[in-house]
Amino acid sequence: MRYCPNCGHAVDMLIPLGDNRERAVCPSCDHIDYDNPRIITGTIPLFDGKLLLCKRNIEPRLGYWTLPAGFMENQETTSEGALRETLEESGSVAICKQAFSMISIPHINQVHLFYLAELEREDFHITEESSEVALFELDQIPWDQLAFGSVSKTLKLFLEDHKTGLYGFHEDTILIDSVAE
Amino acid sequence: MRYCPNCGHAVDMLIPLGDNRERAVCPSCDHIDYDNPRIITGTIPLFDGKLLLCKRNIEPRLGYWTLPAGFMENQETTSEGALRETLEESGSVAICKQAFSMISIPHINQVHLFYLAELEREDFHITEESSEVALFELDQIPWDQLAFGSVSKTLKLFLEDHKTGLYGFHEDTILIDSVAE
Repeated sequence: MRYCPNCGHAVDMLIPLGDNRERAVCPSCDHIDYDNPRIITGTIPLFDGKLLLCKRNIEPRLGYWTLPAGFMENQETTSEGALRETLEESGSVAICKQAFSMISIPHINQVHLFYLAELEREDFHITEESSEVALFELDQIPWDQLAFGSVSKTLKLFLEDHKTGLYGFHEDTILIDSVAE
Repeated sequence: MRYCPNCGHAVDMLIPLGDNRERAVCPSCDHIDYDNPRIITGTIPLFDGKLLLCKRNIEPRLGYWTLPAGFMENQETTSEGALRETLEESGSVAICKQAFSMISIPHINQVHLFYLAELEREDFHITEESSEVALFELDQIPWDQLAFGSVSKTLKLFLEDHKTGLYGFHEDTILIDSVAE
């Protein structure tokens, strides 16, 4: 941020009084800008024991497979956002069963949240964001073509819980050193 | 937002191509501003079976009791943020045991997240943000003097689970109609 969103004056980067972090502060109108982590919310969409994945039609990671997910928007709940993203990316209507994984990724200021979800019916299609949408048997997941670390982590945790049929809530962190994994 | 944070030009509110929501868009440099929900992260800090609460020394809800919590900051994980806020508001060093509640509050674009936590030792003090910090027996929680709906909800859920000793992960929503509760 270089200019004040409130008055258009150039901002200074400094630690405001009573704070302990550098913020963009406007010397003209005293506006302080707070930049905070964002939530990516999505689903693990299941139908008839199979998993729905989307092949990304947009960058980053164009051509790789992902769980449907995206930025949570204002005025919605985490699960509403997850279902909206599922519809937007896969054309499918799903129901959230439970929150399943929450993965902090501090170097990109994101928290990724995934819900176990069930498709209401076998109905999905390619979208602007997905060049393919398909159901995969759980032993056919394209592990070497997954788009993001949070998707791999979530699917590994899901398969572990799936063995027992007891699905927990899992928290994890992805650090910059592990991005390549 | 009235001015572009990138170039200082006045922004227009419009739905960008390929999007479905109104954003602040700069007609001069094409910057699109995305405003997304923020995470409030905090703890349910326990010591020797008692609950630590903080009396707010700042608005909003000055003079009411709360669990230590605040805005998650960039470059940290959800649990790191919860422990930082616990230290800043109560002067106490705690350890997160598990994520316990996640409450979406769509009308203020926030998600409140609370962790079960244990104080490392009986060591806490008033801070700039808290005019009192105290341990409460679980049957002495000041229900009519709690600062926020998410704190009441979380503590009710905690007491329910505490009866059985089995602590789950709980998701809930606070709608605008229920703010007064």
